Amino acid sequence: MVAKEANKISLTLGKIQENGVDEVRKKAAVLIVGAGRVCRPAAEYLTSVKSLSSCPVFGNCTSDDVDVAGEVEVIVASLYLKDAQEVTQGIPNATAVQLDVSDQESLRNYISKVEVVISLLPASCHVIIANACIELGKHLVTASYVDDSLSKLDESAKHAGITVLGEMGLDPGIDHMMAMKMIDDAHAQGGKVRSFTSYCGGLPSPAAANNPLAYKFSWNPAGAIRAGRNPATYRSAGEEIHISGDSLYDSAVKFRLPDFPAFALEVLPNRNSLVYGDIYRIGDEASTIFRGTLRFEGFSEVMGTLARIGFFDAEPHESLKSSERPTYEIFTSKLLGLENDTSSGSQIGDSDIAERIISLEHCKHQETALKTARTIMFLGLLEKTVIPSSCQTTFDVTCLRMEERLAYSSEEQDMVLLYHEVEVEFPEAQATEKHQATLLEFGKTEKGRTTSAMALTVGIPAAIGALLLLTNKIKSRGILRPIEPEVYNPALDMIQAYGIKLLEKRE
Amino acid sequence: MVAKEANKISLTLGKIQENGVDEVRKKAAVLIVGAGRVCRPAAEYLTSVKSLSSCPVFGNCTSDDVDVAGEVEVIVASLYLKDAQEVTQGIPNATAVQLDVSDQESLRNYISKVEVVISLLPASCHVIIANACIELGKHLVTASYVDDSLSKLDESAKHAGITVLGEMGLDPGIDHMMAMKMIDDAHAQGGKVRSFTSYCGGLPSPAAANNPLAYKFSWNPAGAIRAGRNPATYRSAGEEIHISGDSLYDSAVKFRLPDFPAFALEVLPNRNSLVYGDIYRIGDEASTIFRGTLRFEGFSEVMGTLARIGFFDAEPHESLKSSERPTYEIFTSKLLGLENDTSSGSQIGDSDIAERIISLEHCKHQETALKTARTIMFLGLLEKTVIPSSCQTTFDVTCLRMEERLAYSSEEQDMVLLYHEVEVEFPEAQATEKHQATLLEFGKTEKGRTTSAMALTVGIPAAIGALLLLTNKIKSRGILRPIEPEVYNPALDMIQAYGIKLLEKRE
Repeated sequence: MVAKEANKISLTLGKIQENGVDEVRKKAAVLIVGAGRVCRPAAEYLTSVKSLSSCPVFGNCTSDDVDVAGEVEVIVASLYLKDAQEVTQGIPNATAVQLDVSDQESLRNYISKVEVVISLLPASCHVIIANACIELGKHLVTASYVDDSLSKLDESAKHAGITVLGEMGLDPGIDHMMAMKMIDDAHAQGGKVRSFTSYCGGLPSPAAANNPLAYKFSWNPAGAIRAGRNPATYRSAGEEIHISGDSLYDSAVKFRLPDFPAFALEVLPNRNSLVYGDIYRIGDEASTIFRGTLRFEGFSEVMGTLARIGFFDAEPHESLKSSERPTYEIFTSKLLGLENDTSSGSQIGDSDIAERIISLEHCKHQETALKTARTIMFLGLLEKTVIPSSCQTTFDVTCLRMEERLAYSSEEQDMVLLYHEVEVEFPEAQATEKHQATLLEFGKTEKGRTTSAMALTVGIPAAIGALLLLTNKIKSRGILRPIEPEVYNPALDMIQAYGIKLLEKRE
Repeated sequence: MVAKEANKISLTLGKIQENGVDEVRKKAAVLIVGAGRVCRPAAEYLTSVKSLSSCPVFGNCTSDDVDVAGEVEVIVASLYLKDAQEVTQGIPNATAVQLDVSDQESLRNYISKVEVVISLLPASCHVIIANACIELGKHLVTASYVDDSLSKLDESAKHAGITVLGEMGLDPGIDHMMAMKMIDDAHAQGGKVRSFTSYCGGLPSPAAANNPLAYKFSWNPAGAIRAGRNPATYRSAGEEIHISGDSLYDSAVKFRLPDFPAFALEVLPNRNSLVYGDIYRIGDEASTIFRGTLRFEGFSEVMGTLARIGFFDAEPHESLKSSERPTYEIFTSKLLGLENDTSSGSQIGDSDIAERIISLEHCKHQETALKTARTIMFLGLLEKTVIPSSCQTTFDVTCLRMEERLAYSSEEQDMVLLYHEVEVEFPEAQATEKHQATLLEFGKTEKGRTTSAMALTVGIPAAIGALLLLTNKIKSRGILRPIEPEVYNPALDMIQAYGIKLLEKRE
């Protein structure tokens, strides 16, 4: 438990002074490790909670019946103090500290000051923090997939009497909650889930999708591009379908949300959907189990064609080894076998590139070739500027240009779309029902600060997880996902009370 | 010229007192007739002009170099004083008055107080106002198409030394300006316009397009539905294409904006495009001349199917004549020949309706039938409530339900999309260029008041027209459209200075 005024000075020095700990009114404290985009909505939400005891659902609190000061203190820890300070700026009850999680002493010091830890670091770092939490008897929340290294800690977490609540973001996170609520409801009514399909996408808003790829990156594109090469498995009408990583982009199909037909979407299968048959307890009854990633139409055909041309090749490239760097134009011309055109000094246009793509058999359709050509031009891959020495592979070159040219401007909004459809059979009533749930959220700009829909829909569930643990609403110990009613029931209520709308429909 | 404080009292009484006219600083005055949605943005813009003389482009004025009070007074006149007052509320220098334009004396009285009149009334009313303006020597601006009755006044307007500037809205309006700028530029460079295509749509934003029709109405649907039955003519690759009113919906084709591929759009030909070949002075050189209306995908197939079922039939309907009113369910069941199903008490679902639509051959595709069925359900056309006595025809019934169910909620935004593509041949250089111009604007909510993108993009050009006349920037007299450089050059600059973005591209 930390007292705020004392902390403000001491914590920025990287140490907690032990004086001032016993404030008149005891406050709960949460440590958030990692000061990326997701952190601020989580910190704002936690510090805005006015009473941990009086409200059944915190988001419903009115300012009349509670203290104004806020009951939760937040410590935001980051490798760079500046990043943490940027997050906490203007948030009362939030303190920024510098923390290198590999510094065990410092990590333990901060964890010992709080009741719950939220780790927003890359997934591979969670296990370090989880071990420290187990040792110190503190709960942990993450927004990442529960991996093997974390699963293995189940027994020791239980033994320490703590909960490690993983997958408490959007995808994974809200998607699980919405799915399990629909599935548990169906089972409770004696129904069998015959089909489960789930679609999720973090996308630019249509007005911000102003490029031939209809996509933007809010962080380094490398991870997203690599994810586009993951193999996928799902079940469709009883048949198991396997898609290899190489053919993932080719497997994209047109998709329309029945209630929002204006979005020109397509869907790609997302890794192994069958795992969710078991996690969701429908593996034995559902003949269709599909989880997909949403993109705007055209994304996959262009990405697939770029891949075949070689734009994602990750081996060190001969012409990028020397200190004499090629220009983007020379590099891309070689990749496309268009050297003669550029060396003759003539200007290469969309149609030249498209023609070349077709003749090299990188794609079949003229329209796809033209879209890909326009993407190459848009990315500046034919510009006469020199490729920086940081690029060693073609993949590096493509990622750099995508990061530069497919970034959000300060006025542009992102969008999060989540859609579940469950078909339930009621054997006794000889009836079938279709249940649908949709989440559609846009980024918001308030007082000159933009909060992306993605940061919001990841950060708020993580913060809610921490609150549910702080208030002992979650009693299960060990490694947990939000697929249990004790998590998803209050969490979904709080998500909606916060203002994130979940549309539900039955037909 | 009116003095504000004196007016505030006298004008609401419907009379202008002649005292207080000679204020210390003379102000210009504009009368806006019609207090619909378009009025407020126009009134706000006009009254915000700080100096009519010092700025080359008014929108660029900074508050430093001009008076704060504003140099333009606006009188908003409406048949109902309340409507006018609602518009002027909170706008300094704007006064609300009651005016029935058929009351010649009153109309002349108000017109005589101002330098320029803007008529935002239905197009058929403009000629009454134009005649009064000619008589009193005042300029007139409208946002409607210049029709024959207005065209005939050209000579007398010239004789009176006044300008009647029509088509000064969005479509018609900004569309003309963007088109003529592109065309005149091409001609000035020695080019020939070989293809002119223009696409315009007033639509819900994708998030607000939350119904199976992907459309909403911000006013009475009757006019929009009737417009869907207009025959169309255009030129495509040298061939003249005629579309009958009955087959207009069937002629819709998929359409994607190259720079905004996330919008799932379709396009319908918009009336007689060939007229614009002459107006735009490209009739002899362009082998493609096409103007289209944008809708979201699926709109036209559903509307076409609804039309074939008979939902737009405008003859008095037998079962709507009696005082014993049928329910929507009974009425629609008869229309679909599903009486037996409803009278047996069974619940009609989407698939029953879709099956029936197919068997009656109202459409060919299962998917279209299902979308139409979902639309019928969404509109509540199978509800067990009684059809009100105001409905005499099936068309009335459909319009009523569309008005009720396809209205914007207070949180929902509309969207305006305008896209031009011009292909220019430069015979001497043996080169072809493609010029594109795009306008994409969303409705905005500020301080709890929503201004639709449509109101903004119609109201601002009309106000700009009035300013250009007030400041004598437009010197042509008689009936005028914004297809002349003296109008479109300053107007486009001012539209952009205001903040409506026009994206231009050449390839």
